[in-house]
Amino acid sequence: MKLGIIFGGNSYEHEISIVSAISLKKILFNLDIFIFLDTDRTLYLIPKDKMKAKTFSSGEYKKEKIVTLSNSKLLVGGGLFKPKEIQADIYINGIHGQDGEDGTFSSVLDFYNLNYIGPRVQASVVSYDKHLTKLYAKEMGVKTLDYVVIKKGEDISNIKLPFDYPVIIKPTTLGSSIGVNIVESANDLEYGLDIAYEFGNSVIIEPFIDGVKEYNLAGFRANDYYFSMVEEPQKAKFLDFEKKYMDFARTEQVFKAQISQDLEQKLKDNFINIYNTIFDGSLIRCDFFVVDDEVYLNEINPIPGSMANYLFEDFSMAIDLLTNYLPMQNRIDIKYQYIDAIHSAKGK
Amino acid sequence: MKLGIIFGGNSYEHEISIVSAISLKKILFNLDIFIFLDTDRTLYLIPKDKMKAKTFSSGEYKKEKIVTLSNSKLLVGGGLFKPKEIQADIYINGIHGQDGEDGTFSSVLDFYNLNYIGPRVQASVVSYDKHLTKLYAKEMGVKTLDYVVIKKGEDISNIKLPFDYPVIIKPTTLGSSIGVNIVESANDLEYGLDIAYEFGNSVIIEPFIDGVKEYNLAGFRANDYYFSMVEEPQKAKFLDFEKKYMDFARTEQVFKAQISQDLEQKLKDNFINIYNTIFDGSLIRCDFFVVDDEVYLNEINPIPGSMANYLFEDFSMAIDLLTNYLPMQNRIDIKYQYIDAIHSAKGK
Repeated sequence: MKLGIIFGGNSYEHEISIVSAISLKKILFNLDIFIFLDTDRTLYLIPKDKMKAKTFSSGEYKKEKIVTLSNSKLLVGGGLFKPKEIQADIYINGIHGQDGEDGTFSSVLDFYNLNYIGPRVQASVVSYDKHLTKLYAKEMGVKTLDYVVIKKGEDISNIKLPFDYPVIIKPTTLGSSIGVNIVESANDLEYGLDIAYEFGNSVIIEPFIDGVKEYNLAGFRANDYYFSMVEEPQKAKFLDFEKKYMDFARTEQVFKAQISQDLEQKLKDNFINIYNTIFDGSLIRCDFFVVDDEVYLNEINPIPGSMANYLFEDFSMAIDLLTNYLPMQNRIDIKYQYIDAIHSAKGK
Repeated sequence: MKLGIIFGGNSYEHEISIVSAISLKKILFNLDIFIFLDTDRTLYLIPKDKMKAKTFSSGEYKKEKIVTLSNSKLLVGGGLFKPKEIQADIYINGIHGQDGEDGTFSSVLDFYNLNYIGPRVQASVVSYDKHLTKLYAKEMGVKTLDYVVIKKGEDISNIKLPFDYPVIIKPTTLGSSIGVNIVESANDLEYGLDIAYEFGNSVIIEPFIDGVKEYNLAGFRANDYYFSMVEEPQKAKFLDFEKKYMDFARTEQVFKAQISQDLEQKLKDNFINIYNTIFDGSLIRCDFFVVDDEVYLNEINPIPGSMANYLFEDFSMAIDLLTNYLPMQNRIDIKYQYIDAIHSAKGK
């Protein structure tokens, strides 16, 4: 089984995606094909030995061969010569944030009938939009923190939050802590909103619980559920972009969180409720808070940095299992019976 | 402004989409480019004079030129000759149901930077999945009927519905009444579920209110909201697929529903709450129920049959207005500052 990865994208997390793909090169031995999506949506085939950050930051990637999407295959070259088919059986959607996690690239892969590891369009939209994540989680019986959604331009002069300060403000649709900030009092709310509005027209405000216990759990479904170990992430006041960014390059295993079996089971149960069936085909990481022994979903990462490989004891085996459980598209056989029926009715 | 339409798709509503595109040809004089998406995802350029149902049901369309998607343009031809660019300024996403309304084709159009009329990926997913529609509507302050979601394989032997029979069973993710059926008593529930399961692994059950008042309202946002007239659809017990199908070919105007100004305003207010900003770029039709003077959302059609043209007094003008208010994609300028920072830190 030969794997390919598509990474980059028109996203604030473009660089994260590059670092993440480089990390995966080191740990997945059957990962052989590297396809870079430029911000202007051109795809390039990057030779394995050029999978270094500098290839991208220097713009050298532009010398590489352009890849085009075609039905059930990716093609490279062309011009005077017949284009050559790229030989990967399954592609990892390794584009983070916009383009990759918002459903765009999943749809493109589905449209071209390519086999891929990654969230499908519905799962992408549900996890990309933090507001929809809240609605979905609640429906699935998973708690989340209280929240308020505010749109750019809304009058906030008389706003009364249903929880106390400090609060944390996040753009509704970005990952990796971009635009996220903590506001200590009502006086600073407007300023905090402005920071978040730079990255979107809608923000979500939640109570900020200093020192809250945080646990990350990755996993996927392949007949049964397959889980990573639970990690208690190290943190500053909160993980800002740069700290999270460094995190994306991780390939070393972490230490297992010291938690009771009971709590571990609770985290797994919540994970299963979230994963449900809509995340089929993807390895996701759920980040949870634990407050007074209750589990709350913080966020769903449907394409976690470097696929959260460092949380798995045998990551290659995990990927093997997952590749055998990718959802198939529903192909529809059109018989034109309605059009024919109308023609008959019209006597034509 | 030259318009194109892309229609067909790998969808149970494939034929509906064809009929709908043919109707639009008759009423939109600047609609000149017709692109057919086969169920195997090949695109064909259909000459205007061949825009007849028979071209598709006979398979004759396969003789037409193949279209390929490219950055910011559609290309036709190629081989020995340089491919020619297709000259449309804006494309209508005219693919109904799967492929078109589930977010797939919206994403493809976004990916290739094509200007289009139609729901964006998030709006598509929210309206395509009836369960998500319920959650979204509630959050936006719009009532919907009570419901229960059941998944294939779930044990229903002890199920207690929180409402009385008769009930209506719908596949969670299809439009146009496909797989929908009414169940009169608990004895017939299993059979009704089986019908719906043929079209998906998840169904939604709602109370069926015989003779409920139903009103359809189409519209869009272009600075201000622009509404169609309110229609009270004629109906049999419920609109089955064939009746709805015929409906997709409509180009004649309907009579305005005889309702109070107060109710009309209520419908519009609910429409605005649903449309919000996520449906920007699309002309949608909301189908409402009215029970005891309360408005309930039945469903959102983000790509209504023949664009609900028959509900507008001046449909061409409506489309003109909308084309000036299409959302732009957020283009991101990557400076490689994080990658550069890591390199500096490493002393490379």
